[in-house]
Amino acid sequence: MEKPKWVIEKEQEKRLAKAATVWMFGIHAVRDALRNPNRERKRLIVTKNAYDRLEQDIIASGMEPEIVSTRKFDAPIDPQSVHQGAALEVKPLDWGAIEDACMAADGQVPRVLLLDRVTDPHNVGAILRSAEVFGARAVIAPARNSAPETGALAKTASGALERQPYLRVRNLADSIEKLQQMGYLVLGLDGEAEMTVEEAVEGMRDRPIALVFGAEGPGLRDKTKQTVDKLVKIPFAADFGSLNVSNAAAVALYAVRP
Amino acid sequence: MEKPKWVIEKEQEKRLAKAATVWMFGIHAVRDALRNPNRERKRLIVTKNAYDRLEQDIIASGMEPEIVSTRKFDAPIDPQSVHQGAALEVKPLDWGAIEDACMAADGQVPRVLLLDRVTDPHNVGAILRSAEVFGARAVIAPARNSAPETGALAKTASGALERQPYLRVRNLADSIEKLQQMGYLVLGLDGEAEMTVEEAVEGMRDRPIALVFGAEGPGLRDKTKQTVDKLVKIPFAADFGSLNVSNAAAVALYAVRP
Repeated sequence: MEKPKWVIEKEQEKRLAKAATVWMFGIHAVRDALRNPNRERKRLIVTKNAYDRLEQDIIASGMEPEIVSTRKFDAPIDPQSVHQGAALEVKPLDWGAIEDACMAADGQVPRVLLLDRVTDPHNVGAILRSAEVFGARAVIAPARNSAPETGALAKTASGALERQPYLRVRNLADSIEKLQQMGYLVLGLDGEAEMTVEEAVEGMRDRPIALVFGAEGPGLRDKTKQTVDKLVKIPFAADFGSLNVSNAAAVALYAVRP
Repeated sequence: MEKPKWVIEKEQEKRLAKAATVWMFGIHAVRDALRNPNRERKRLIVTKNAYDRLEQDIIASGMEPEIVSTRKFDAPIDPQSVHQGAALEVKPLDWGAIEDACMAADGQVPRVLLLDRVTDPHNVGAILRSAEVFGARAVIAPARNSAPETGALAKTASGALERQPYLRVRNLADSIEKLQQMGYLVLGLDGEAEMTVEEAVEGMRDRPIALVFGAEGPGLRDKTKQTVDKLVKIPFAADFGSLNVSNAAAVALYAVRP
């Protein structure tokens, strides 16, 4: 019997995901990835100068770097990237299942962010950084239509990519429902909502809370709006304009702090 | 009698500032600048395609565009810029004196941001955008060691550069003292402060409040720290890491909302 098309597609996706690697670049991002014991590393290309700056971490990692001259630096990254002579090929980190990553533990009151088609790597990088600072348990985004773990993202995340769980899922609405079953109050950020985020969490700050952000412009998809528990807004003075999505995420995380 | 050196330098600086122009690029930034009646405009270079998209605004502005082919697009901007075939040479906007821009009016409770050597145009652009959304009266930065009104800044600001007062001053400490004389409570953001921003404004939300942010890494200069009324921090869950400066500005503006 032939496998149905969706099964074949799913298997293909899994194989691709397993094989996929990404290139980190820049001294800081490469150093962070070298120091992360959970990082599966493939190739390291460095100039002599970058080697000198990273020497201790390279030796500690046990990797054999390919040392090249600046003119011959040929890592397959965007030639405009500020790579500082260092590029490292890695596998994306495996952060496990939502159930484990987002489980409440040790009397902590967990927070989670979900991204509905936020594709700009700079925004996602900044969001990972804020998520880490505010102690969010995880950032969840669909495997498609979201920013992959590229070097640009790693650079904006300023180290947080190595430490902040960033889960890529098949279906965001399914993830929202899972979180709801785990006791999360799930709030969708929507500029046209009636209720402010503070009003929505009044008396519920000791509950697990998840915040969902859409892309700038289109905002949350209809399916997402229908799945969340409440739509909420950040109250502004101006009646026009809107925050950049990474700024909105930082403000909302602050607004729902336990 | 010869003029002292500092007088000559000051005069030179003024002449340069008067002559200085910047190039805006990208459909949105150019459209915003064309629509702004306060914008002094010099030259407009557009491709045929960009002209078609901007036609109404170009006609309304009364400018005579230089229409060039995509291959011959030669506006003096960074060749990597995403200019979308549109570049406009403009004079920086004149937002007047601090005393006027930051005066309390109409029973409003004003907010002001000051930037102490924040040089990344993307950060300053995002800060202008947040400042506008939260209704801040002005963003103030030193004329030197801060991000000029470049096209990159305009693009990140997403229109806010045309509307949000962005004052460039000679000396930031003098500006802080001026604001204090005008009744402002001036808070310097510092990760090592004891007091949270909420604690500092407790019972004083109806006062004019100014927030000062330093560059990532070095933070506020000593002189700035000595001049502000209080040093405050944003409370985080994590005991390491820090917010990107534009995210910190958005959170702080939210935290001190009237």
